[in-house]
Amino acid sequence: MSVILILGVDPGLNKCGWGIVASEGSRLSHVAHGVIKPAVQQQLATRLHDVFEGICAVIEQYNPHEAAVEETFVNSNARAALILGQARGVALAAAARRGLSVAEYAPTTIKKAVVGTGAADKSQIAFMVRRLLPTAGDVTADAADALGVALCHAAHGGFKRRAGG
Amino acid sequence: MSVILILGVDPGLNKCGWGIVASEGSRLSHVAHGVIKPAVQQQLATRLHDVFEGICAVIEQYNPHEAAVEETFVNSNARAALILGQARGVALAAAARRGLSVAEYAPTTIKKAVVGTGAADKSQIAFMVRRLLPTAGDVTADAADALGVALCHAAHGGFKRRAGG
Repeated sequence: MSVILILGVDPGLNKCGWGIVASEGSRLSHVAHGVIKPAVQQQLATRLHDVFEGICAVIEQYNPHEAAVEETFVNSNARAALILGQARGVALAAAARRGLSVAEYAPTTIKKAVVGTGAADKSQIAFMVRRLLPTAGDVTADAADALGVALCHAAHGGFKRRAGG
Repeated sequence: MSVILILGVDPGLNKCGWGIVASEGSRLSHVAHGVIKPAVQQQLATRLHDVFEGICAVIEQYNPHEAAVEETFVNSNARAALILGQARGVALAAAARRGLSVAEYAPTTIKKAVVGTGAADKSQIAFMVRRLLPTAGDVTADAADALGVALCHAAHGGFKRRAGG
């Protein structure tokens, strides 16, 4: 059975988490993770470009087969939605750069896939990510969320199995 | 006096307008304009990447010195703000790709610079853009908005004069 590498991204302008998970049948393993942190004193456009370049560098280095990003929860704050949308846009565009298909999952879907309940909080996500990927070592919250999206995509069978099923 | 080429961008996911204006002292002239239209049947990430690539191609071809983008008007619709934010993010990141500085102007500032009043509507912007740039020829609304942002940046003296003043 071939190994599928899945890139998960947790978009953000100050901290953009990413994680790569290898999926081989039902076996899942940690490959890498990290957080892109554009220097805050730069202008907005440059910070967004740093996020874009960061994701491109990860794809260049690890050559993932598929990508997944959390669907953004939009509350009533339009200003916050705009700012998050900007970071999310560059993360999605970077993931699509090499022709990667990018799946999107609702926060509750990710929580259910990783923790077992859609009502789980961030600390439970991080806890389960470390349990499911014991070789990941020290994982910050942003990287844990990104690995969580990748795990969710693996649990849902990725594009190939979904297309085949 | 040296010629400064200014790239103006009107971000959008379905239609992203762009325009290049040459500024030589107080003389302004039209260089080029267009609209990037990603195929709507593609997934979101691919459409965002198309916008990114489109702006990069324009920069590659015309080599502008400075860039300007309209500040996004955020109303109470957070969902719409998120979608526009995504397109805006990739447009800003693409403009910053070659180290271009990217200025942002409020819609009222652009209207005032181009039409003379901050209460001008879109058709007045298009009308004045065609008057100020008579060689532009047929200009659609999206490209007119983008040329308007570039004209506003020129009127405000760009980065160099602002930094010097």
